[in-house]
Amino acid sequence: MNVDGKPTRTIWPSPGGGTVQIIDQTRLPFELVLDTLATWQDAARAISTMQVRGAPLIGATAAWGVALAMIDSPANGMLDKACAGLISTRPTAVNLRWALQDMQRLLGPMAPSGRAVAAWQRAIEVTDKDVEMCRAIGENGLALIQAAHDAKGKDEPVNILTHCNAGWLATVDWGTATAPVYMANDAGIQVHVWVDETRPRNQGASLTAWELGHHGVPHTVIADNTGGHLMQHGMVDLCIVGTDRTAASGDVANKIGTYLKALAAHDNDVPFYVALPSSTIDWTITDGVCDIPIEQRNAAEVTDIAGRAADGSVTTVRLVPDGSKAANYAFDVTPARLVTGLITERGICLATVEGLAGLYPEHAGLRALGQG
Amino acid sequence: MNVDGKPTRTIWPSPGGGTVQIIDQTRLPFELVLDTLATWQDAARAISTMQVRGAPLIGATAAWGVALAMIDSPANGMLDKACAGLISTRPTAVNLRWALQDMQRLLGPMAPSGRAVAAWQRAIEVTDKDVEMCRAIGENGLALIQAAHDAKGKDEPVNILTHCNAGWLATVDWGTATAPVYMANDAGIQVHVWVDETRPRNQGASLTAWELGHHGVPHTVIADNTGGHLMQHGMVDLCIVGTDRTAASGDVANKIGTYLKALAAHDNDVPFYVALPSSTIDWTITDGVCDIPIEQRNAAEVTDIAGRAADGSVTTVRLVPDGSKAANYAFDVTPARLVTGLITERGICLATVEGLAGLYPEHAGLRALGQG
Repeated sequence: MNVDGKPTRTIWPSPGGGTVQIIDQTRLPFELVLDTLATWQDAARAISTMQVRGAPLIGATAAWGVALAMIDSPANGMLDKACAGLISTRPTAVNLRWALQDMQRLLGPMAPSGRAVAAWQRAIEVTDKDVEMCRAIGENGLALIQAAHDAKGKDEPVNILTHCNAGWLATVDWGTATAPVYMANDAGIQVHVWVDETRPRNQGASLTAWELGHHGVPHTVIADNTGGHLMQHGMVDLCIVGTDRTAASGDVANKIGTYLKALAAHDNDVPFYVALPSSTIDWTITDGVCDIPIEQRNAAEVTDIAGRAADGSVTTVRLVPDGSKAANYAFDVTPARLVTGLITERGICLATVEGLAGLYPEHAGLRALGQG
Repeated sequence: MNVDGKPTRTIWPSPGGGTVQIIDQTRLPFELVLDTLATWQDAARAISTMQVRGAPLIGATAAWGVALAMIDSPANGMLDKACAGLISTRPTAVNLRWALQDMQRLLGPMAPSGRAVAAWQRAIEVTDKDVEMCRAIGENGLALIQAAHDAKGKDEPVNILTHCNAGWLATVDWGTATAPVYMANDAGIQVHVWVDETRPRNQGASLTAWELGHHGVPHTVIADNTGGHLMQHGMVDLCIVGTDRTAASGDVANKIGTYLKALAAHDNDVPFYVALPSSTIDWTITDGVCDIPIEQRNAAEVTDIAGRAADGSVTTVRLVPDGSKAANYAFDVTPARLVTGLITERGICLATVEGLAGLYPEHAGLRALGQG
């Protein structure tokens, strides 16, 4: 997407090759700082310090990390070491594991002399494939926004509520939940996005607001408490959120608080869509509420918050009294019954076993054979 | 309630009389600072700068403001001036208006020579009456917590979720939503409170956590996004919240986000109670969602947040990127269909016209006559 008019991705090979550029997302939203990854250790550090975040972007960064390692040395020892080092940065990230397995399957059987170029080319392909996946999600979701716009009479913006950051900063480009929004905006459809700030880590207020603002998409940041009131008063036309893990039944694990917005949407007949690449679907799970484990993160994310102080420095302040403890559940599960539809790279389907099986028959077959 | 073992109210006459003491709530939760009100202007400043807040406490402070004015001068001019000055601090606060009208009705017909003592005595009565009102709410709500405790087998704490601060800091003592909790805690029933931080002003994280902690009630602060997940997993036994304005039908206007918690409670069969003194009931309104106007506050409450920096100073930091705007709706309305019951000073009733009419037949009569 654009940053003040300049097309930008979250990760790209430096001109001339040999190193990789990233946006250092820990510096957002107050500074746009690029960083250069020259070694696989740089890539590992970028992932573990959350300079890059979002499952698709983490996967792409891992692929680039292996490519950097192969330039350093294409020996078997280096391949194993880099993959082990990269997987340990975020052990539960599915895309990270997938990207590293893919690189090992490609490079392992290959003569070392060919590995550097092959790894570089594969990293380009992984990156471009993610862009195409997100673009397809955007094209599929665009129809929903177009329809909402037509229904409103075309003179008013379509109001879309989103939660957390399922934007281009979480992927390589386009994002998942934001892809239809960018697509609509760029097609000249008036859109306006209600951006949940998304406590405790505030990815909405910092990242989603930043990327929408710099691309030129009208938006308003709101406290997470606000969406219900807006929906009661007809101020939201549709909700689009992302997902970290999707059950085969259509249950959706996403950032904590997503479930509350889905309840409000259901109570007010506001369509609630979830945008996802099929890589987030866990075909082995059909009861998301029971079977998707929910990570608990550091309580300090709730008790303390960072922002820009009057002197321009980024400062952390404590919000709760000494002696009060906090709990920090990172995700919740929205039952499929509250989800109007799933926007995937293959099309839109109902959030049901049948809906997903219709779009992904190859997995439905596996499940029927008990191999899922 | 207790502050580290010492029984404390939010406002009380100084020993020897002539001035009034308050807790300066703008300094919480990091410092307990008392302030002395010596003039009606001091009282007006305390209200307008939110050193005191919460409808019942604002009403009591206004009464004390008039009492201080009458010590200064019991002339008619002073009575009118003080009342006009005090009402202008928070023009929409119902209790404020009510307290000032009460003082004017009492003092207006009286010879000036008797006004100082009469006003002082009435301020004491207004204050004590609020304490008794909250104590009665607590006694009525206690039965619910006792029943939940009995149902759980008495070995586990009763988990109660609350939103915002409807605690003793918003009243003179006990609070409304917290009164049953303190009552249960003091009766030896194990309780644990999930405290919604309550963005954007964070009254839960700062005030509710502070008062529970200093009274010795076990509690955990959570992001507002968290309650739905907790309820899905059986970690909340009941919700108790306060209300700023209650429709005759049982619709409840309370801090923004209350509606989302009520939806989650309903979806998970968790009882959702609203505690209120009958002074918050607006007998003229039966459709809260349509007819209760929702205040919009300064967007800076969303874009910026204050907390304690590492050097101990209270510092404000900005959370959203420059150029992103924010919206700040202060309240939302929870439809009566989502409310299990109303805990009032007269007892617990269903959140229906009939339920409230049963407890307050004098108002039901007025409504039937078309005079409500």
